[in-house]
Amino acid sequence: MSVTLADIEAAHRRISPYIHHTPVMESERLNELVGAWLFFKCEHLQKTGAFKTRGAVNAIFSLSDDEVRQGVATHSSGNHGSALARAAKLRGVPAYIVLPGNARRVKKETIYGYGAEIIECEATLAARESMLDEVVARTGAVFIPPYDDDRIIAGQGTAALELVNDVSALDALIVPVGGGGLLAGTSIVAKGMTSDTENSCAINVYGAEPEMADDAFRSFRSGERVGNHVPATMADGLSTTLGERNFAIIKDLSDGILLVSEDEIVAAMHLIWTRLKQVVEPSAAVTLAAAIRYPQIFTGKRIGLILTGGNLDLSDLPF
Amino acid sequence: MSVTLADIEAAHRRISPYIHHTPVMESERLNELVGAWLFFKCEHLQKTGAFKTRGAVNAIFSLSDDEVRQGVATHSSGNHGSALARAAKLRGVPAYIVLPGNARRVKKETIYGYGAEIIECEATLAARESMLDEVVARTGAVFIPPYDDDRIIAGQGTAALELVNDVSALDALIVPVGGGGLLAGTSIVAKGMTSDTENSCAINVYGAEPEMADDAFRSFRSGERVGNHVPATMADGLSTTLGERNFAIIKDLSDGILLVSEDEIVAAMHLIWTRLKQVVEPSAAVTLAAAIRYPQIFTGKRIGLILTGGNLDLSDLPF
Repeated sequence: MSVTLADIEAAHRRISPYIHHTPVMESERLNELVGAWLFFKCEHLQKTGAFKTRGAVNAIFSLSDDEVRQGVATHSSGNHGSALARAAKLRGVPAYIVLPGNARRVKKETIYGYGAEIIECEATLAARESMLDEVVARTGAVFIPPYDDDRIIAGQGTAALELVNDVSALDALIVPVGGGGLLAGTSIVAKGMTSDTENSCAINVYGAEPEMADDAFRSFRSGERVGNHVPATMADGLSTTLGERNFAIIKDLSDGILLVSEDEIVAAMHLIWTRLKQVVEPSAAVTLAAAIRYPQIFTGKRIGLILTGGNLDLSDLPF
Repeated sequence: MSVTLADIEAAHRRISPYIHHTPVMESERLNELVGAWLFFKCEHLQKTGAFKTRGAVNAIFSLSDDEVRQGVATHSSGNHGSALARAAKLRGVPAYIVLPGNARRVKKETIYGYGAEIIECEATLAARESMLDEVVARTGAVFIPPYDDDRIIAGQGTAALELVNDVSALDALIVPVGGGGLLAGTSIVAKGMTSDTENSCAINVYGAEPEMADDAFRSFRSGERVGNHVPATMADGLSTTLGERNFAIIKDLSDGILLVSEDEIVAAMHLIWTRLKQVVEPSAAVTLAAAIRYPQIFTGKRIGLILTGGNLDLSDLPF
């Protein structure tokens, strides 16, 4: 296995000075509604408003001074861009973020706020990748991918590490799956912590995914990674394609991919906003949507759900 | 003084088994924006989604078994109704809640959910009071007022008690003022804890109030309680009239009433939703609005702000 539990524990020690150990929330009313014990890990309260900051900090602080001197670069239209910009500022090196020209203004302002340089390009993957190559060639910056990277996977796994340490006797974990960094890291934690010990109670790990962006579901079912797909979900954080490294881990260690509809995402998001009083993105709400849709798996169980982020436009809500 | 610090400490012991000790949140970005240290007491995460549950539980559990046997009654179009319904259920006695016929459906469902009886009436104060008299005469229930009541004031004061115990060296507290239960209780805590001890650092207490519902501001300035006013604020929790007992305490122990505009409430609410990722009512946002509007009072200070509630209709937001 490319990434081990020991790597994730090391990542946690490395990033702890720079991140929040986020709280876990519960709601009696939601427990009654779902018929299970739900423990929500609040990564929307993480620095930069998303778990992505864990992987970005781990990747940048894993580099030697020499390696990182010319800075770091990535392409991102999501939370990875601002996470990397903040992590680079902490390390004291430049960050170059390639963004589509139509990216939201608030996102650009956040990245500028951390002192990073934004390079705009066309809104296609090909344009982003070729612009990134240009930037790396010009600046000597190190490319830090958003998810298909061992250091990123190890960093994202630290959220699950905190959750299983903070909440005893979990039966299952549900995390959103997009590129698969979080699901891969979470699976390594869950299987690693319950395999070699006297603890015989395995924790099952499920990825929750929108029906409208079901590449992980199809990849998991067929055993072959689906490389091209056309996502059309409101959960924009999950419209990325499952990474190669991520799929290799998920195929081995995850217990399933659970699909949810767009309506189920909206309903779950409404419950999280009104019951937990937490502002989360649609991408985060897929976890509760899955817990509600699959009672045959979850009824009566103790379930950890990772609320992955809370960055969204309040003037464009689905309610 | 009708209510003392000792009463509030006793209330806290009485209600602790039935309420959440709510967390305190901070945001680096908000601190930078305001130029002060802000500590948000999260009463929107309280049982029933509002601090009102503290006063309701204290009032009901202060009654003897004989007194409470026939149940409790109130009129409310706000958070006091569901708080009283829940507290009565905990005590195992009936609750009768008089509501205007046009009250929101979700509010009625919450009250029904706690097993209380709803009695509908016209949407005027006169109609509500006469219906309440009828209910009390018919059932023998004890009337529990929403704020003009010593047990309610003592109960609401427990939120500030937790806050000043959890956060060291606060310079000031800002709380919303409607009927004045929370502001009165908070003022007693702040002055009581800093008067008779060696601690010479007084905590100043300010009420934050919408310009469009400024009866507390005018009462405080003139020294005479303004009994009739016509509120027109989106902060519906603050459109009540300052109570007599409440004003007597506030006049003596509070340091001022700070007005904020409707636009300032929306802007502060937007900041709390996007920076803290917390779903709070407009009534709760007046606290941050005041901290932003009055830098001459707050710059460089350590400020506790009570986020009083998070119950609102997501399909009717001001953004």
